Amino acid sequence: MAAGLGVKAAPFTYVAHALAVAAAVMVLVWCISFRGGLAFEADNKNLVFNVHPVLMLIGYIILGSEAIMIYKIFPKLNHDTTKLIHLILHTIAIVLGAIGIYCAFKYHNDSGIANLYSLHSWLGIGTIALYGIQWIFGFVAFFYPGAAPHVRRGALPWHVLFGLFVYVLTLATAELGLLEKLTFLQSTGLDKYGAEAFLVNFTGLVVVLFGAAVVVVAVAPAHAEEPEGYAPIPVN
Amino acid sequence: MAAGLGVKAAPFTYVAHALAVAAAVMVLVWCISFRGGLAFEADNKNLVFNVHPVLMLIGYIILGSEAIMIYKIFPKLNHDTTKLIHLILHTIAIVLGAIGIYCAFKYHNDSGIANLYSLHSWLGIGTIALYGIQWIFGFVAFFYPGAAPHVRRGALPWHVLFGLFVYVLTLATAELGLLEKLTFLQSTGLDKYGAEAFLVNFTGLVVVLFGAAVVVVAVAPAHAEEPEGYAPIPVN
Repeated sequence: MAAGLGVKAAPFTYVAHALAVAAAVMVLVWCISFRGGLAFEADNKNLVFNVHPVLMLIGYIILGSEAIMIYKIFPKLNHDTTKLIHLILHTIAIVLGAIGIYCAFKYHNDSGIANLYSLHSWLGIGTIALYGIQWIFGFVAFFYPGAAPHVRRGALPWHVLFGLFVYVLTLATAELGLLEKLTFLQSTGLDKYGAEAFLVNFTGLVVVLFGAAVVVVAVAPAHAEEPEGYAPIPVN
Repeated sequence: MAAGLGVKAAPFTYVAHALAVAAAVMVLVWCISFRGGLAFEADNKNLVFNVHPVLMLIGYIILGSEAIMIYKIFPKLNHDTTKLIHLILHTIAIVLGAIGIYCAFKYHNDSGIANLYSLHSWLGIGTIALYGIQWIFGFVAFFYPGAAPHVRRGALPWHVLFGLFVYVLTLATAELGLLEKLTFLQSTGLDKYGAEAFLVNFTGLVVVLFGAAVVVVAVAPAHAEEPEGYAPIPVN
């Protein structure tokens, strides 16, 4: 669709990378400087929770975003190489995402907090399940054993469309998570207009802008002459 | 982009309408049966708040969604007529959205609750501001006085892309609002796994599926033979 706008992907990849760095720094400052740091085992259970936003944002969303953008970041690289990087980045993202979700459950269980009652948790579990389904279909159809060329060609736009749907859901889930955690903190006394509240809210805004840039990169062509952005290179 | 998938808009308009009815019923049941009803003036300030989710979901999001889909709902109608319905529906949506936001502020102010500190409020204010900018540009470029035909043709894909960006932001804001209100209620004793919690969370899921259907309708062609979904009819 962005092909019809006459914009190329390259400048948006730079914007996306800058916003990714900003979001990564912001979530680290939040969880380390404001929330006390990160730990997989600690007497202070909050440190276990802190791993959750860091892994979900940097591991799951940012690495997943780089995987999405990889064909437009390196448009001249050998297609098999970019496809392999796409697969590896998504694999690391989903593993780090699973560890991040584990940390949230561990924090809940160790602290006597209920699991899976909030819209954040529902959308989050649904989203990583869809992400996993997308990974499996993508692996089987495009990597090993790989479908017949005409099947791949028909499946690719669905892979892109469903992938972007799952991607937007991950962004929405991240926004819900930031709001939910901050609401808990504010209900137990955190200043509603303090530095930490503003840091978390601005992290939410940066994630929205980052996600928008990534979606534009995904649908925009790598080169101006291409008619459609989502299939820059033959599928076989 | 969905044009490349070979799907037509029509079946997705039916899905969207069914989900819109479901979401509307769910938010009304929540605000009337569970939360005590709706009022612009009342001793029970909660009734004033209840107008907010009802107007934002039914007035702002559902009417705005119908406006987005109108070209695909009535593909054979005269283009000037559908364009006028598109404009009128978006105008009603933005007015009802503004009234809905007013009710949230009125509830806060009458109850001594702080304004504009949450990510929901930040994204919400930002989104309706962008919606207003989109309305003004659309009115001037496509309705009155109207830009030159070649300018319209160049502006239309941007109108669609920016419109869909704003639309996805309204959906994200709705999800944040549902989670925020439910979190407040649960922090003051509402059952985390009770009927009301499930109703609100499922409303959030229905809104996500509804929004996905609307976006597919917007990018899919009305007829299979059209090459691109976002410009089914000449712009002039």
